[in-house]
Amino acid sequence: MSVRKEVSAIVRQADVNNATCPSRGVLEHLTSRWGVLILAVLLDGTQRFSELRRAVGGVSEKMLAQTLQTLERDGFVRREAQTVIPPRVDYSLTRLGEEAARQVWALARWSEAHVAAVIGAREAYDRARS
Amino acid sequence: MSVRKEVSAIVRQADVNNATCPSRGVLEHLTSRWGVLILAVLLDGTQRFSELRRAVGGVSEKMLAQTLQTLERDGFVRREAQTVIPPRVDYSLTRLGEEAARQVWALARWSEAHVAAVIGAREAYDRARS
Repeated sequence: MSVRKEVSAIVRQADVNNATCPSRGVLEHLTSRWGVLILAVLLDGTQRFSELRRAVGGVSEKMLAQTLQTLERDGFVRREAQTVIPPRVDYSLTRLGEEAARQVWALARWSEAHVAAVIGAREAYDRARS
Repeated sequence: MSVRKEVSAIVRQADVNNATCPSRGVLEHLTSRWGVLILAVLLDGTQRFSELRRAVGGVSEKMLAQTLQTLERDGFVRREAQTVIPPRVDYSLTRLGEEAARQVWALARWSEAHVAAVIGAREAYDRARS
């Protein structure tokens, strides 16, 4: 089977619930611990590495670099090394990345808005078991 | 500060980009490797443990049990032990869980629909570097 035919077969049958389907990996990258936060932050616009590092609390340099590379390879993030002095690298969302980022952004805002309900649920759960 | 006041302060300032904010944990549970898939599958309706195990390819019994417990404690999943013979445990989404599940469901479907674009991006990325 040609690569093109193989890819179209994958798309037709794409199923994240199938452990061997490549869509599982796509979803895992989008929902990775730092991937979610980086994508959501990049919705604000182009940012430098150091800006992203400050924006995403707790991320290490290593994890930020690694996650950005994964997102770049997946076609979600664009990396542009600017030929200026001092050198600067800008990161921004591709069109594909923006689509994905909107969704994880919404999930991040939902988590913030519902944190009280979750804390309440945890207290009730623990109370019922103590 | 009373617990109620503390919780409302958290909600006002909730920020997933702050590493110590509890909303970060909420988002991490929703986007956990198995949490995403389990929530999305539960949108189909009430399911038994064994049904979930079959639906979510590759999940171990241990990880399924652990993730369901986390989602139950967070108030996203309802666990009901049926007093029938043989004994049966049903899992379903709470109202809160359904809201969250709709979002991760959409992200799962998006990942399936765009898997070809991502595979193409990876090939281009690797080609440019080989």
